[in-house]
Amino acid sequence: MKNTLTAGVLLIGNELLSGSIEDRNLAHIAKTLEQRGIRVRETRIVPDIEAEIVTAVNALRQRYDYVFTTGGIGPTHDDITSDSIAAAFGVENVIQQEVYDLIDAYLSGKGVEFTAAAQRMAYAPQGAEMIKTDQSIVPGYRIDNVYVMAGVPRIMRIMLDGIVAHLKTGVAIHNASVHANIGEGEIAAALEAIQNRHPDIDIGSYPQDKDSTISQYRVIFVVKGTDLNEISETCEQIYQACMDLGVEAIIPSG
Amino acid sequence: MKNTLTAGVLLIGNELLSGSIEDRNLAHIAKTLEQRGIRVRETRIVPDIEAEIVTAVNALRQRYDYVFTTGGIGPTHDDITSDSIAAAFGVENVIQQEVYDLIDAYLSGKGVEFTAAAQRMAYAPQGAEMIKTDQSIVPGYRIDNVYVMAGVPRIMRIMLDGIVAHLKTGVAIHNASVHANIGEGEIAAALEAIQNRHPDIDIGSYPQDKDSTISQYRVIFVVKGTDLNEISETCEQIYQACMDLGVEAIIPSG
Repeated sequence: MKNTLTAGVLLIGNELLSGSIEDRNLAHIAKTLEQRGIRVRETRIVPDIEAEIVTAVNALRQRYDYVFTTGGIGPTHDDITSDSIAAAFGVENVIQQEVYDLIDAYLSGKGVEFTAAAQRMAYAPQGAEMIKTDQSIVPGYRIDNVYVMAGVPRIMRIMLDGIVAHLKTGVAIHNASVHANIGEGEIAAALEAIQNRHPDIDIGSYPQDKDSTISQYRVIFVVKGTDLNEISETCEQIYQACMDLGVEAIIPSG
Repeated sequence: MKNTLTAGVLLIGNELLSGSIEDRNLAHIAKTLEQRGIRVRETRIVPDIEAEIVTAVNALRQRYDYVFTTGGIGPTHDDITSDSIAAAFGVENVIQQEVYDLIDAYLSGKGVEFTAAAQRMAYAPQGAEMIKTDQSIVPGYRIDNVYVMAGVPRIMRIMLDGIVAHLKTGVAIHNASVHANIGEGEIAAALEAIQNRHPDIDIGSYPQDKDSTISQYRVIFVVKGTDLNEISETCEQIYQACMDLGVEAIIPSG
């Protein structure tokens, strides 16, 4: 699509690769960025191993306008994201005194010891810009075009809300859909012809399982682009193709 | 971990990167493989763009014992996985006559036209081994150490069930957990000491949101390894560390 910016996402954590936890962050990041004209072009999921994080960060930050990482910035032995990001940039992981003081005051107020382990949360790569929010004491941060966030979804969302104001925006990406009771194979030729007429539009075709909670129809066509008129026109053409083939279809509003 | 095999997973599809659909395949693949002693070490999510798929497949297949892909093997214009896998291996994407005949017979029986688009589903890279199952006409397939599966979760699971019998197995990976009402920072030092005593065990620490549906406790420690006794011993040591710190903890059974 024209005039959109690109992003890579790096999800860090053994638990995501072992199936212990299903990621709940990527979809939220992607939708939040698309509203601002930034498209996620690639996502990698890596374990809590420094060499893996370094390789992935360096690959992604060279390819995309922005990189967003989640996970590994807590206080435990497997929280090695800041060390790894520092290594990727060839800088030291250093104490952020202002963050240190905030956490220290917060824990003192609760009567909890500020352990050496917890102090790790006050470290970030040399040169990083802390991105504070009202709602989280430990901030996310930026180094060059890489934004580092927590893995816990509630905290990640707070950090992302603080980050988006700092981003350049592209032309916003919109989408609409057509639901239809047709096999993909039967409409594929018509769909390809419509796609070819609209090279700036992305048409995706998603067959639904019988137990789909998303649609009672057999397939959903998702139409994405930056021009609302062209999205609408494309949906009408897909709907018409369904009518021509004699099958049920709807264009849900909104 | 000792004596385990490694896998890379490649999830293919624009919809996963745009947040239109949340992946439901990775966790199932990871858990299924872990039971057989195969650990997912990296996952990449790429769009329906040939060059991106080629780059990712070639990176993963060189690094890991196995690669598993999902998505992009249907009949529509954005289903380019088989073309891309063929390109990654430098071979042609060729018709699989037996698969063609099966789909042809199936559609004839339903009185549905076997369109040129649908015929794409009968193609696979030259040299691929079709992995048939009783429950799906279109099979998943293997080329070298790469296994190609559908993106629709119900069909992916059928294909994976057919595939696992073909895989070498490592020593099975087991896990157990401890739930505790403690901040990660307060137990981090004790946890690191326990981790250092058990280098063949992976201890993960996962703080829970207040609205967590997984646990009412503030944090879950997940203990993974290949030795059931050592897993059990490690859990007991974490539990004891919680007791020493005067906090509630449980070791859920099963």
